[in-house]
Amino acid sequence: MSLSKPYVVGIDIGGTNTAYGIVDTRGNVVAGGSIKTPKHVEFKDYVEQLHLAVTRLIEQEGLVGQIAGIGVGAPNANFYTGRIESPANLFWMDNGKRIENIPFADTLKEKFGIPVAITNDANAAAVGEMTYGAARGMKDFIMITLGTGVGSGIVVNGQLLYGHDGFAGELGHVTMRRNNGRMCGCGRTGCLEAYASATGVARTAREYLETRKDASLLRNLPLDDITSKDVYEAAVAGDELAREVFEFTGNILGEAFADFIAFSSPKAIILFGGLTKAGELLMRPLRESLDRNVMPIFRGKAQVILSELKEGDAAVLGASALGWEAK
Amino acid sequence: MSLSKPYVVGIDIGGTNTAYGIVDTRGNVVAGGSIKTPKHVEFKDYVEQLHLAVTRLIEQEGLVGQIAGIGVGAPNANFYTGRIESPANLFWMDNGKRIENIPFADTLKEKFGIPVAITNDANAAAVGEMTYGAARGMKDFIMITLGTGVGSGIVVNGQLLYGHDGFAGELGHVTMRRNNGRMCGCGRTGCLEAYASATGVARTAREYLETRKDASLLRNLPLDDITSKDVYEAAVAGDELAREVFEFTGNILGEAFADFIAFSSPKAIILFGGLTKAGELLMRPLRESLDRNVMPIFRGKAQVILSELKEGDAAVLGASALGWEAK
Repeated sequence: MSLSKPYVVGIDIGGTNTAYGIVDTRGNVVAGGSIKTPKHVEFKDYVEQLHLAVTRLIEQEGLVGQIAGIGVGAPNANFYTGRIESPANLFWMDNGKRIENIPFADTLKEKFGIPVAITNDANAAAVGEMTYGAARGMKDFIMITLGTGVGSGIVVNGQLLYGHDGFAGELGHVTMRRNNGRMCGCGRTGCLEAYASATGVARTAREYLETRKDASLLRNLPLDDITSKDVYEAAVAGDELAREVFEFTGNILGEAFADFIAFSSPKAIILFGGLTKAGELLMRPLRESLDRNVMPIFRGKAQVILSELKEGDAAVLGASALGWEAK
Repeated sequence: MSLSKPYVVGIDIGGTNTAYGIVDTRGNVVAGGSIKTPKHVEFKDYVEQLHLAVTRLIEQEGLVGQIAGIGVGAPNANFYTGRIESPANLFWMDNGKRIENIPFADTLKEKFGIPVAITNDANAAAVGEMTYGAARGMKDFIMITLGTGVGSGIVVNGQLLYGHDGFAGELGHVTMRRNNGRMCGCGRTGCLEAYASATGVARTAREYLETRKDASLLRNLPLDDITSKDVYEAAVAGDELAREVFEFTGNILGEAFADFIAFSSPKAIILFGGLTKAGELLMRPLRESLDRNVMPIFRGKAQVILSELKEGDAAVLGASALGWEAK
């Protein structure tokens, strides 16, 4: 970390919002804001607006010349190439033609005149956790984000695992069910993400409601509208079927984590994302399943813990942590 | 690599033999030998004999003072602690009492007065492949040893993945069949090793012979005596059932490799060990299964290739490569 430039900027790009913030060496977001990601169809207009917004914030805080780097977290972002590669939910044009392979880091670096590093959102979360959160001091851990999908960031020997092409850490897409597995958004079947995401929880609930006869508070809702939040609220209200949905989800996560531990033997697996709000409803069956499934030599070694980053700040914080190392 | 000390010693410890060799900077085994591992029950007697044998070899080659380090590959060896931890098939005593946790690296270092590094046999094979074999120049690859069991050594960012406790890389024990999986030596069921090892191939053949009615050359052998070599020979002779055994084995390896790639996105998966002699009988179904099962963004990226190390030398070479970094 540079003492003469004691701040970084974190930018988290989602399909709806682009959030940004200025972060100090202790991980405090000293100021932040956001713009609508899809407002501009032309990529250069989007960059123009983002540059203007972030520059104004820096000026407003009196921090011109004190920013060491900019870190960006975005879906499908590649640390090695600095590009966002064929994103499913980001749609930008270059003079009316869709850009498949967006040179994000270089474009921003040129615009700001500040070093920029970019990686995918789950990797950014892992760096954030290592720099400011539950993974401080850990050299080997796995970050699992349980949101709409299941993302992962893997840290080994104190470094993010990028793999030979920059795309390592797709743990949402290990195959958990090889027969009659659920369809996954990636085009395959049986992926962890199809079961253990917020979407997966809602799918499990719908399956239970359709194939079982027992009473459930969830039967008061239109089947297709049920969300993981509904399942959580029913479970908290004591609904047995809803509780079993979390048992099933925790069980499959424990099975998956047992295999992850056989791979990289992490000190901890850290969970982040909306689904972790289910707390012990999810964590108890998860830990029990992990204990049942993990190889004896690893039993009791890797802790499964929750992220220590504030949810509102986490994405920006995680991205910003990359800024310290940006070149 | 030290120019003043341009040789290393590699020691490969198996349950039956301890092989050793002196290796030059180009990966030539300039001289070698072996002793019987279980000849001495007392650990200090074994070390004494090993020290004598290796010292004589060094003297005989006129290389006294020219050995930069000693690298050791052994089952359950831990790079971090320098110990061989609770080995299943190594049995040594200290004054008549079994040693559970053998301080191998320290003992050898004291005896020889040369730096010693130790790791498990699959990790040693990975280092050997990176230093002298098919993985030269690769920073991200996975070594899979297909022998009596299934071992693995994982290299990321050019470094062996040891995990927080030194035991990472147990890829023979990811769960491939979650229902009615085969019993595995680790105490669990459905592990890759129970299917894709030499032992697993023989088990598959026995299952087919017991549950099917079709003719097979293997029916001429006593069921319990069938080995993977018998299955290979029958397959080469055109036996359909034997060929299907390799189809099944290749298929399950392809399924497993698809998940490994989602984890660390290696440039290559390198196969080593007796089972690889099956060649295309195994490799074709393996590659086809990998293509079917791998996530689209990784399709066609990771090559599955065979080790380039000579089989007789490989274990010693792999171990010796560690010697260059020993401290």
